[in-house]
Amino acid sequence: MKFNKKLQNIKTYEAGKPIELVVREFGIEPKDIVKLASNENPYGCSPKVQSAVAKIIPNMALYPDDSMLKLKNALTKKYALEHKNLIIGSGSDQVIEFIMHAKADENSKILMNSVTFAMYEIYAKHVGAEIVRTASQEHDLDEFYGLYKATNPAIIFLCTPNNPTGDAIDTDKLMEFIEKIDNDTLVVVDGAYMEYAAYKDESKKIMPQELVEKFENVIYLGTFSKAYGLGGMRVGYGISSENIIKELYKLRPPFNITTLSLEAASVALEDEEFVNNCIALNFQEMKRYEEFANEQKIDIIESYTNFVTLCLNNTQNSTEISNALLRKGMIVRDLSGYGMNAIRVTVGTKEQNSRFFELASLLL
Amino acid sequence: MKFNKKLQNIKTYEAGKPIELVVREFGIEPKDIVKLASNENPYGCSPKVQSAVAKIIPNMALYPDDSMLKLKNALTKKYALEHKNLIIGSGSDQVIEFIMHAKADENSKILMNSVTFAMYEIYAKHVGAEIVRTASQEHDLDEFYGLYKATNPAIIFLCTPNNPTGDAIDTDKLMEFIEKIDNDTLVVVDGAYMEYAAYKDESKKIMPQELVEKFENVIYLGTFSKAYGLGGMRVGYGISSENIIKELYKLRPPFNITTLSLEAASVALEDEEFVNNCIALNFQEMKRYEEFANEQKIDIIESYTNFVTLCLNNTQNSTEISNALLRKGMIVRDLSGYGMNAIRVTVGTKEQNSRFFELASLLL
Repeated sequence: MKFNKKLQNIKTYEAGKPIELVVREFGIEPKDIVKLASNENPYGCSPKVQSAVAKIIPNMALYPDDSMLKLKNALTKKYALEHKNLIIGSGSDQVIEFIMHAKADENSKILMNSVTFAMYEIYAKHVGAEIVRTASQEHDLDEFYGLYKATNPAIIFLCTPNNPTGDAIDTDKLMEFIEKIDNDTLVVVDGAYMEYAAYKDESKKIMPQELVEKFENVIYLGTFSKAYGLGGMRVGYGISSENIIKELYKLRPPFNITTLSLEAASVALEDEEFVNNCIALNFQEMKRYEEFANEQKIDIIESYTNFVTLCLNNTQNSTEISNALLRKGMIVRDLSGYGMNAIRVTVGTKEQNSRFFELASLLL
Repeated sequence: MKFNKKLQNIKTYEAGKPIELVVREFGIEPKDIVKLASNENPYGCSPKVQSAVAKIIPNMALYPDDSMLKLKNALTKKYALEHKNLIIGSGSDQVIEFIMHAKADENSKILMNSVTFAMYEIYAKHVGAEIVRTASQEHDLDEFYGLYKATNPAIIFLCTPNNPTGDAIDTDKLMEFIEKIDNDTLVVVDGAYMEYAAYKDESKKIMPQELVEKFENVIYLGTFSKAYGLGGMRVGYGISSENIIKELYKLRPPFNITTLSLEAASVALEDEEFVNNCIALNFQEMKRYEEFANEQKIDIIESYTNFVTLCLNNTQNSTEISNALLRKGMIVRDLSGYGMNAIRVTVGTKEQNSRFFELASLLL
């Protein structure tokens, strides 16, 4: 059977066995496995969210409210926006998918940072678009502008704070950059970790409503998977001008969010105190990583997120070290696939981090 | 801003206010609203599923197991298949989306029944493909074959039992039909309601493993949204040859099923007794609809599902009648949008159905 030829350039994503199973093959008990690889909130989600979801378990049989009224009301209140500026996706991933299918095709170019969130490239390949990357590891907006002028991309992805490096763009510079972009290029500002950056440093804080007020061609992405502690529930969102939201809505499948996920996300927004406490703890614990890197004489990228990126020395190999950690039941992310001799470690609970320092100090 | 031109042919799906809110505007209390419009399992899902999900609520913070090991093990056991024959979607809807993007584009034709599941057309429009429909209301496989020869479609959709009419194709005839289809046309056999048909009539029962053994170019679709009572959890699946599954997998976004949904679907397969009891009750209650239609002298299409389609007489108007029911808090589906003067009613619990008969007998 013949398939669309653009599929030829997509590698099948072969989901392996869950990494917990792999670790168990080393004879490690599930209770001794520590996963600091997916930037989940180590404190889980708000107890209020847990009780609210428990209450509606009998509703699993009922299709979700496809107007998402409760969640949209909560989000528009948080951001001082209107429903027409909002689209909800199964993770912000799905909003990226809508964006790509709405704006790009096999004749388009997509501009992104050298090292950035992997899904931009994956969805670009789904539509057969060409990927253009900067050379610099941190977002260099001058380099972005040069490439923009040279290639006329359909979409520019700016990930701030950036995954998997943790650095963030100054808000002023971001706004200046967008000013210079033609209205027919869509600028995506991916703020998946923005709650952390906004807490740490006002100068990195991006207000979606300000973006929408100023620019017709920008979409802001947010998620419940990180600070809100709902990585398993698949809820993200896009905030943009009415015109763009309308087009993306054409590509949204009905019932794209589960009944329990809608409730979880709505109630999560009612307990900002929980989220703020988690973020405060995150940065307290992050200091320990900075001290650890200092002691070990390795570089750490200043992080505005809930993870740290440890850049290893020439004598160390990130793949070997992450495999050695794996054999001890400690799961972190090797960044060699991004062309970096570095590991990315989610800032976990106090105990999880202590365990990391204990194991890593033997290996580094 | 310019968007892909295929979007011009897609109407924005404007999700209105939840229908429960509309009904409440008529002064009806939520407890008095009966919804027989979405073919949900009126008995909910298995109590075992409910307890299993309740137990893992703290896991909402954790990304789902993207290998879906537990669910795939359960499904391959049920169907005597291998993992390589299986893909899981956010509802079988999402598998339809993968199929469309893998196999069709703006040069393709998609063949389907005159009246059938609305998502086939919606996803066909996403890729700009042309839709070819039969004239006959029930699946007429001779007519399908004629149109297949005349138009050379990339994909043929067969929905059995069919939604929204409830009739089903004889398995023998279906197998004979597929035999005659060239290997480069993908035949989709959508069995969303197959559990009901298989219970009622062996001659309508389709075994996915038999399809996969015999044909390289067929994909079977199943769902947890109907008989398994998990409409709110968004889990469906496709069963096909390794070759086709591999291509569809290229388009699957990681983490497309929530952590709680994976658990719910896996455990649902362990309680087939619950499902069988629900199906038995469904057909007991369906008899009352047949009697009701007989008394009212209106036609009812013989149904192999958990809904009935009542074809009204010339003096009756399906839109007026469903609106009148709505004002009384009874939500059913008006099929005028499908070109039928008919209403589709989910077979509910005994009490729900009694309420329908009471209200409808005043209006018909």
